Amino acid sequence: MADIINECKAAWRAIRVKCPLVHNITNYVTVNDVANIELAMGASPIMADDEAEAADIASMAGAVVINIGTLNSRTIESMIKAGKTANVKNIPVVLDPVGAGASALRNETTERLLKEVKMSVIRGNVSEMSYIAGTSANTKGVDVSSEDMRRDKLSIAKTVAKKYGCTAAITGEVDVISDGSRACEIHNGVSELSRVTGTGCMTTGLLGGFAAVCEPFTAAVCAVSSMGIAGELSFEKHGKTGTGSFHTGIIDEISRMDGEIFSERAKINEL
Amino acid sequence: MADIINECKAAWRAIRVKCPLVHNITNYVTVNDVANIELAMGASPIMADDEAEAADIASMAGAVVINIGTLNSRTIESMIKAGKTANVKNIPVVLDPVGAGASALRNETTERLLKEVKMSVIRGNVSEMSYIAGTSANTKGVDVSSEDMRRDKLSIAKTVAKKYGCTAAITGEVDVISDGSRACEIHNGVSELSRVTGTGCMTTGLLGGFAAVCEPFTAAVCAVSSMGIAGELSFEKHGKTGTGSFHTGIIDEISRMDGEIFSERAKINEL
Amino acid sequence: MADIINECKAAWRAIRVKCPLVHNITNYVTVNDVANIELAMGASPIMADDEAEAADIASMAGAVVINIGTLNSRTIESMIKAGKTANVKNIPVVLDPVGAGASALRNETTERLLKEVKMSVIRGNVSEMSYIAGTSANTKGVDVSSEDMRRDKLSIAKTVAKKYGCTAAITGEVDVISDGSRACEIHNGVSELSRVTGTGCMTTGLLGGFAAVCEPFTAAVCAVSSMGIAGELSFEKHGKTGTGSFHTGIIDEISRMDGEIFSERAKINEL
Repeated sequence: MADIINECKAAWRAIRVKCPLVHNITNYVTVNDVANIELAMGASPIMADDEAEAADIASMAGAVVINIGTLNSRTIESMIKAGKTANVKNIPVVLDPVGAGASALRNETTERLLKEVKMSVIRGNVSEMSYIAGTSANTKGVDVSSEDMRRDKLSIAKTVAKKYGCTAAITGEVDVISDGSRACEIHNGVSELSRVTGTGCMTTGLLGGFAAVCEPFTAAVCAVSSMGIAGELSFEKHGKTGTGSFHTGIIDEISRMDGEIFSERAKINEL
Repeated sequence: MADIINECKAAWRAIRVKCPLVHNITNYVTVNDVANIELAMGASPIMADDEAEAADIASMAGAVVINIGTLNSRTIESMIKAGKTANVKNIPVVLDPVGAGASALRNETTERLLKEVKMSVIRGNVSEMSYIAGTSANTKGVDVSSEDMRRDKLSIAKTVAKKYGCTAAITGEVDVISDGSRACEIHNGVSELSRVTGTGCMTTGLLGGFAAVCEPFTAAVCAVSSMGIAGELSFEKHGKTGTGSFHTGIIDEISRMDGEIFSERAKINEL
Repeated sequence: MADIINECKAAWRAIRVKCPLVHNITNYVTVNDVANIELAMGASPIMADDEAEAADIASMAGAVVINIGTLNSRTIESMIKAGKTANVKNIPVVLDPVGAGASALRNETTERLLKEVKMSVIRGNVSEMSYIAGTSANTKGVDVSSEDMRRDKLSIAKTVAKKYGCTAAITGEVDVISDGSRACEIHNGVSELSRVTGTGCMTTGLLGGFAAVCEPFTAAVCAVSSMGIAGELSFEKHGKTGTGSFHTGIIDEISRMDGEIFSERAKINEL
């Protein structure tokens, strides 16, 4: 436990010093928030999704983030190309399989990405991660996951981690992260986070930044816990005002976060 | 008058309880605000615009919102497919004909959508709705409607309602809504709402949420009046600060709104 | 010096009175902020990027803004078409060559745009403008420019201005603007502006608005200095709160700005 906290503190120091370039191929719903939260953490985001430049941009990056939130035929090829380029150059790739399980297109794309690109981290809600683990699942939209899917998160995370040789992060009321050997549970966050679109995408964005400066398990724990802490701090200030101010406050808190704030608030249990 | 207010109060209760999934095919300018205002009201938004999944997603939804703000050849087919699927399944479809009248592409797309998809509600400014009614119109951009178009709103709304068997909502300084038999005028709102992009799109987003839990005329009245009230409340707090804070405040107010706040502030005249 | 300040004051008066329509073909990362800052300044933005309507929309506009931030094969043709239409009708065209120098696609597109469309103003960071000037450059992402590129800005600006018969604006810690004969340096702004995505795009958006109501050199000076002033004012209020609130505050300050606020804070040195 002290180990992972210290690793996260080191990650927070590293991100501010190294300012890694993060190449995001992401959805147009939350792209502005993803760019702003990556800037807030100290990374340097670049959004580029045309097939003609996906390889060029990915090869300059410290990490590549692939988010299928509003995937379409044009960008799927770019995701594959950016991912393959990153693999060749040993640049970590982070996948956010938004809505996996909800449509044939999302299922096929997720499977193709997992077949053709080696992921360092996969982050999703329990519906999406169940789908990837091979458990049948029903999804009721990208910002809600059905209650009956909340059991056996650890088993799902371990299955995904072992199946794809990656770190698997399942976010929700309680977050569970596993890389197949290590595992932990995170109890940060507030339920209001589900009333702002893109808190999942932003978590994946943070994860991309950290993945460029530390190893994948630490990156996932640090990103997920930091997002939860930012949610708590913003909710303390803006909870009664409304979800618009709460949303702005999340970016504020990430921009001010450091290893000290992190270690004071992190609620991480090793499993 | 008491009737419509009571129906709106019931709609506010229903949306928070039922949390319907709303499928939005919308523009990339204001998509984040549309998702956030739908979450703020209690709905569950999903944005998916690829033709390959338009039918899958629409068939799961409680309502489908089609907004042509940044339409392009790729998404037009998705709009048609989502709309037709919704029609088959008796899922209400809401159209926001952004910029209709401003270009041949928008005109042709609007006409094709209206021919191939049965709409429950069409919401637009007076320029857009005049175009649909068959009155010749000039549009000067999506956030401004020329003054000389402001007359005869009720006649335009009734024409659209009867022509397409739907509820027609014309928003502006005074909003006029008709379903061909009932009609009303709404006097909520502040002029500052026209200095934030997407207040029309957000109104249509709210309309999609309400259309999933009540009948179309009520949904339109409740959405349009709620947006006006949110604008008034936000302007009281942020009017002197500027349009950025005012924008954030609109989401805040919708996230805190309920039937009580609504009925205290609603200014609805039956016609 | 007094001249340019007076010209800028006149530009601020004109924009509020004339409310020009600005046609933006821009990236999906910062498009909402660009629309909102143009509304905040008093302009009327329209975002339309399909080839089928690019000419229709451009021909109605007071200025056309082309931003290649998330360019793709579909929108490149629209940019060319909008630009050519504007040239025929003597409507000013403003180019933001986001990431020029960072990929073959961006380089080729920038070159094609500059060959086929006559630009009134080009605004970029020093990496992008060096690329256009013909100096070899390395870009480390769209929100950061490498320190070793900061020398000789005036020479780069003059080269671009003469090569393309336009006003060239290089933004950064110190901004340099030249139209080949006149030149000035602007010392407004705070470093925190680089921690919010799209402050460059928003500056270009402001530039589009001003270009519709005054001549290009004045438009560039007024836009760049106004953005810096808005950054200073917002930072005074929100600097300690975080980058989310600082971001919202930038829009607030532009919405409240006028010639008086501008002339009190502008730090412009003629060169």
